[in-house]
Amino acid sequence: MNQNGDDQALRDLLCLTMVSGVGPLTSRALLDHFGDAGRVLNASTASLRGVSGVGPKLADKIARARRDHDPHVEWQRCLERGVRPIGFDSPDYPAALKDIPDPPPLLYVRGTLVPADSLSIALVGSRRCSPYGLRIAERLAQSLARVGLTVVSGLARGIDAAAHQGAMKAGGRTIAVLANGLSATYPPEHEDLAAEIAERGAVLSEMPMLQGPLAQLFPQRNRIVSGLCLGVVVVEATPRSGSLSTARHAAEQNREVFAVPGPVDSLTSRGCHELLRDGAKLVESVDDILEELGPLVREVKRNVDETPVRHPAELTLSDQERSLLGHLGDDPVSVDELIAKTRLTPQQVLATLAVLEIRRLVKRVAGHRFIRP
Amino acid sequence: MNQNGDDQALRDLLCLTMVSGVGPLTSRALLDHFGDAGRVLNASTASLRGVSGVGPKLADKIARARRDHDPHVEWQRCLERGVRPIGFDSPDYPAALKDIPDPPPLLYVRGTLVPADSLSIALVGSRRCSPYGLRIAERLAQSLARVGLTVVSGLARGIDAAAHQGAMKAGGRTIAVLANGLSATYPPEHEDLAAEIAERGAVLSEMPMLQGPLAQLFPQRNRIVSGLCLGVVVVEATPRSGSLSTARHAAEQNREVFAVPGPVDSLTSRGCHELLRDGAKLVESVDDILEELGPLVREVKRNVDETPVRHPAELTLSDQERSLLGHLGDDPVSVDELIAKTRLTPQQVLATLAVLEIRRLVKRVAGHRFIRP
Repeated sequence: MNQNGDDQALRDLLCLTMVSGVGPLTSRALLDHFGDAGRVLNASTASLRGVSGVGPKLADKIARARRDHDPHVEWQRCLERGVRPIGFDSPDYPAALKDIPDPPPLLYVRGTLVPADSLSIALVGSRRCSPYGLRIAERLAQSLARVGLTVVSGLARGIDAAAHQGAMKAGGRTIAVLANGLSATYPPEHEDLAAEIAERGAVLSEMPMLQGPLAQLFPQRNRIVSGLCLGVVVVEATPRSGSLSTARHAAEQNREVFAVPGPVDSLTSRGCHELLRDGAKLVESVDDILEELGPLVREVKRNVDETPVRHPAELTLSDQERSLLGHLGDDPVSVDELIAKTRLTPQQVLATLAVLEIRRLVKRVAGHRFIRP
Repeated sequence: MNQNGDDQALRDLLCLTMVSGVGPLTSRALLDHFGDAGRVLNASTASLRGVSGVGPKLADKIARARRDHDPHVEWQRCLERGVRPIGFDSPDYPAALKDIPDPPPLLYVRGTLVPADSLSIALVGSRRCSPYGLRIAERLAQSLARVGLTVVSGLARGIDAAAHQGAMKAGGRTIAVLANGLSATYPPEHEDLAAEIAERGAVLSEMPMLQGPLAQLFPQRNRIVSGLCLGVVVVEATPRSGSLSTARHAAEQNREVFAVPGPVDSLTSRGCHELLRDGAKLVESVDDILEELGPLVREVKRNVDETPVRHPAELTLSDQERSLLGHLGDDPVSVDELIAKTRLTPQQVLATLAVLEIRRLVKRVAGHRFIRP
């Protein structure tokens, strides 16, 4: 498809997204049924009603969408705010998000998404939080950023803001997922923070540009926060905090759930303790996160000249460990070959292999040779 | 056996206990082999060496014990400090302690042990502790004491002392288990605290009166702390704290292991977080302890006119709940019978039964009748 064709497809998707009542599951069903958004918008009410989840009222709204909504105006709003719509089929659409049961058909993105963002961890927590929670959120975010992980959160007051700020302080990437459309920032006092995040990562939403921050949109937003990430860390949460819904989504999406404990006489740690009782992994430091994460579904090449990352634990390797790992792959390599290739001493190679083996980043196979598992 | 016979048996046990190198397991093997301490002390070195764990040197020491040690002097030391030696076969010997693999053959007890002490919880922690740890130890001890549980600890500085003090502040019972003999108090600044504890419970040790506080005696002492209790709560512990050894003993003795989480940037909570990772139950309040404890091995009657307690969770019942439970036992009782016996309204009986059923303190059987499980 040419650039104009792409534009038209995206505009059709924008138009469909602007129809209130078309959620991610209905949208997916419509697109699967009709093939693309253009065909959905051109469909008759009768044929629309043949799709699961589409009642008579919604069928009418979809059939009227080309008259009711102007995707060119929405497109203009995007341009004004530096927002780029990314469709599900775009190569820029985050791969991890495609794996969840109800991925957004369209993402509004202010800033950039890069391949390294597939190494993301969500840091979330209560708006009502303690100085302890803020301190730990910022520290964890800094540590995650330093080893090269992208920190995802929800731009809320409290823990979320501290997470974004911590990642940026450490020079890392961060992504804010909003429940409202990107024409406005919510909460409004985080307008500058959002602009900064867009420079150093992305601010994104699945909602049309003008959508306001309705309460019921937040739990739905939370599935994107967890869906983008390898795991969700709840830093501090009151018993009914929305961050517990993010943790639930994470569990349903087969992401790791982590929780930071805190003082038992602090209400803001109650939610975390409840998660720990339910089996969340206890986090004291970034190492607890990296050790718990399993091998990546897809290997990630963060820079052109870098060995692709297959396991988050590789992110904390020394130069020597990383160099040796770079000579290993699916084909077994002997110690002698490694000595020749790395120019390390035999002792160094053996010691480094031992460390990598303990961390389960290399595997010993027959004939005293090694592979990456 | 008459009183004098009892005295002689106890003196023989005191004499055997005074032989250095006779630990609880060797002592048990000797008593099992020869029948009683008198026969052990009268045995030949040859026959002593036939017992597992007894080498030539130890056999000589045991055979010489009646000449080397004077149990009358030891007895006198006990009297002077208000200490009563209690042998394994005494009805006053704590039943729970008999269940561990290596129970002390003799306990030196200053104060009293009562049947209600079988409802004991150990609260332990680091000497190096934070204001947070002290606050929580005292609060938990108070709460445990208020519901009628005896608080056991090790009289150490820090968490241990706060646990004993909390229990006494709430008017409850507390037991201090010492690693040294009871002729002196360790640490010395807890002399007054020990005297207070002896008034409101007991200070006890398995060691001869003059035994000093050697480092290697503490882990061995810790098995008595956990052995006396239904569960061990570690309130605050540095990574190498001795309280982690108490937790290990608890696990080996099939007692519940509990840990209180704390701030992740506090070194004194590290040990607790390690325990939580290993499966210890997370404690925020006394309810977390009571809910986790299973039914008692032996029911406990705390007062003459009271319904025996079969499950620690019964300790927090309201008067109405307790009254209704008092009419239930192993034989099924119908709701009508309960209404007649308790003089509660049908609604009250049904509501109370529902609460007790949820807390698993009553069980519904065939014919809409109830028993205690």
